[in-house]
Amino acid sequence: MALFVQKYGGTSVGSLDRIRNVAARIAKTRAEGHDVIAVVSAMSGETDRLLGLGRELSERPAEREMDVLVSSGEQVSAALLAITLEAQGIPAQSLMGHQARIMTDSAHTKARITRVADERLREAIGEGRVVIVAGFQGIDAAGNITTLGRGGSDTSAVAIAAAVRADVCEIYTDVDGVYTADPNVCPSARKVAQISYEEMLELASLGAKVLQIRSVELAMKYAVKIHVRSSFSDAEGTMVTGEDESLESVVVAGVTCDKKTAKVTLRMVKDEPGVVAGVFEPLAEQNVSVDMIIQNVAIDGRTDLTFTVSQDDLARAKDVTEALAAKMGSGEVLIDDDVVKVSIVGLGMRSHAGVASKMFRLLAKEGVNIQAITTSEIKTSCLIGAKYAELAVRVLHDGFGLGQEI
Amino acid sequence: MALFVQKYGGTSVGSLDRIRNVAARIAKTRAEGHDVIAVVSAMSGETDRLLGLGRELSERPAEREMDVLVSSGEQVSAALLAITLEAQGIPAQSLMGHQARIMTDSAHTKARITRVADERLREAIGEGRVVIVAGFQGIDAAGNITTLGRGGSDTSAVAIAAAVRADVCEIYTDVDGVYTADPNVCPSARKVAQISYEEMLELASLGAKVLQIRSVELAMKYAVKIHVRSSFSDAEGTMVTGEDESLESVVVAGVTCDKKTAKVTLRMVKDEPGVVAGVFEPLAEQNVSVDMIIQNVAIDGRTDLTFTVSQDDLARAKDVTEALAAKMGSGEVLIDDDVVKVSIVGLGMRSHAGVASKMFRLLAKEGVNIQAITTSEIKTSCLIGAKYAELAVRVLHDGFGLGQEI
Repeated sequence: MALFVQKYGGTSVGSLDRIRNVAARIAKTRAEGHDVIAVVSAMSGETDRLLGLGRELSERPAEREMDVLVSSGEQVSAALLAITLEAQGIPAQSLMGHQARIMTDSAHTKARITRVADERLREAIGEGRVVIVAGFQGIDAAGNITTLGRGGSDTSAVAIAAAVRADVCEIYTDVDGVYTADPNVCPSARKVAQISYEEMLELASLGAKVLQIRSVELAMKYAVKIHVRSSFSDAEGTMVTGEDESLESVVVAGVTCDKKTAKVTLRMVKDEPGVVAGVFEPLAEQNVSVDMIIQNVAIDGRTDLTFTVSQDDLARAKDVTEALAAKMGSGEVLIDDDVVKVSIVGLGMRSHAGVASKMFRLLAKEGVNIQAITTSEIKTSCLIGAKYAELAVRVLHDGFGLGQEI
Repeated sequence: MALFVQKYGGTSVGSLDRIRNVAARIAKTRAEGHDVIAVVSAMSGETDRLLGLGRELSERPAEREMDVLVSSGEQVSAALLAITLEAQGIPAQSLMGHQARIMTDSAHTKARITRVADERLREAIGEGRVVIVAGFQGIDAAGNITTLGRGGSDTSAVAIAAAVRADVCEIYTDVDGVYTADPNVCPSARKVAQISYEEMLELASLGAKVLQIRSVELAMKYAVKIHVRSSFSDAEGTMVTGEDESLESVVVAGVTCDKKTAKVTLRMVKDEPGVVAGVFEPLAEQNVSVDMIIQNVAIDGRTDLTFTVSQDDLARAKDVTEALAAKMGSGEVLIDDDVVKVSIVGLGMRSHAGVASKMFRLLAKEGVNIQAITTSEIKTSCLIGAKYAELAVRVLHDGFGLGQEI
């Protein structure tokens, strides 16, 4: 007998029929002798509907109140799932964030979980109930309702799984696992049976939308086994776990492509100590996250400084940089949002030499020009022209042999 | 400077435009130098929509979960109103039942408020905020979400007004006050400026749907002044308060008609001690509330026993009574739901003789047969044929001079 945490996303509870399906899946897990804590998102579309109402009333709606507003979505789906289970004679109980004691900081709309007091959860499980926890929401120390940001229900589920020491945290979603590349782009993409936290973290950061990044961080910290799988099939999905020997044999685990990136170049910057800090500090103050940074060799005491930002932050980045250029007496500011960042991720890159150079060669062979490069221990990313996005993913995917069964 | 509790019903917050109107009214009250605690219902139609979802999933949905489900409606309207006020620069804060500490018993779907811990309310008011409390909801001692039954937001508002010792509890609704009779039936019906708790209680019990009965009981107990008024006009409504001399002069304050009544007759019952108890105990066990009871004089040791019940309970009452008839060897069971109960209510009836007999005479003059009578200290009710309902209301209204300005 094991303890399962099962998280069901918005599409999985998107209609009354789908809620009945979820109830059937929970019933099956119980029939196999296991305890279940289910964590649910709002019915698909509901969060956006509620956000829309708030934004219609105010250009900058009060964040505390937006959290109260949107957290009602998970309240509805949690209650509906509990009603469905009870109608089938399965004792169930919904718990909101304030009842399950999902404690967070006070950063409304993007709060971080600080603690899950597990007594109430254990008590309900001990009474033989299925517990349905409203995902995405918590309360701060003063009892205000908070939400965890988009995809926050993943993080709710992992935090709860860590608190109750669940045997596994199943993330039910509308895809059946983690793929070596986006199957829409790369027909030979393959579902991976297992992937490490570190690789999943890089993939999530690079735009693979299967799991919220923070949920993976939390799972890694507390060694929570995550099973990403489809709520529409019984097929095994992808296990996200700590490293083991079998994982080490894979050099590259996946290829991703981030299309929401843009390049900013500040020309003819003085090559003096403190100048670079003078550029990036004001950007940080304006809450612009800078991703890649390239500084060319200086010629005649001047250099070009290029960096990339998310397209969401581009307008702010442009304003800040243009103001700086005027102030510092540097050259013009060039903007290019016709770029993408293509990346390969794999634990094996740590111990295998020549992986990055193989990536560059594969791209060069197709005539793809590389505009910038960043690397981490288990990742290499290249900024390339947007028109090459799909071609680059396919070339890298097949060049590293990801389409083959291992 | 006074402290106002203002309750806004479902139609008053039924759309974003109406929520803006409510915000404007609150802003006006504040501009006059007063503090405001607003209590809101769910947007009109929302509670029914949520109930419908729950009932689609289960014939007898778990009541604890139905409370979780429907209480989300008030959460949404409270947040939207707070967002609107904050957008206008008026500091506001929504509080759910668990945050405002509206403590109730554990009778899900019809819980009773046991206590309002007013610290959080006073704290927010002390910070210069408008406090928006989600009506209709509370929590029990174990932290479960409860709801107070239809019209429960009235009770929330009065309980909060009592706890914070508000100067007045304004109930904003879609009518502009309490009338001497239903204006749709009786064109000469007149809005009353003032009415006593006792009279309001009788009127509410008799089917006037302006206020939830429990809210009036609570207001009477804690001497909370209620001002029933329209959210669509600035006209003064009706003050519901304790008695004073001016009220004593009114003999009859209002006429009501309850159409949701039905008559059950059990024929040829043995006229023996214990027989009547033997009929009404099983009815009470089946949760059937019996209203009027008439027992005829016995002939040959047998009598007919007639009683009235709400039409909602009629099916159950019929089953119970027919089973009893078979068991007791009494005669047939007659059902008549083609009846209404017309009532006159007034504090003055205590000190004025002949009011009831004047009522009977007024009805007789129009050829209306009286099938049953009940009286209380400040009320007389007659059961009559349904076809006479409107005629009886008009005759009594005008016969007691209610259409005249006083």
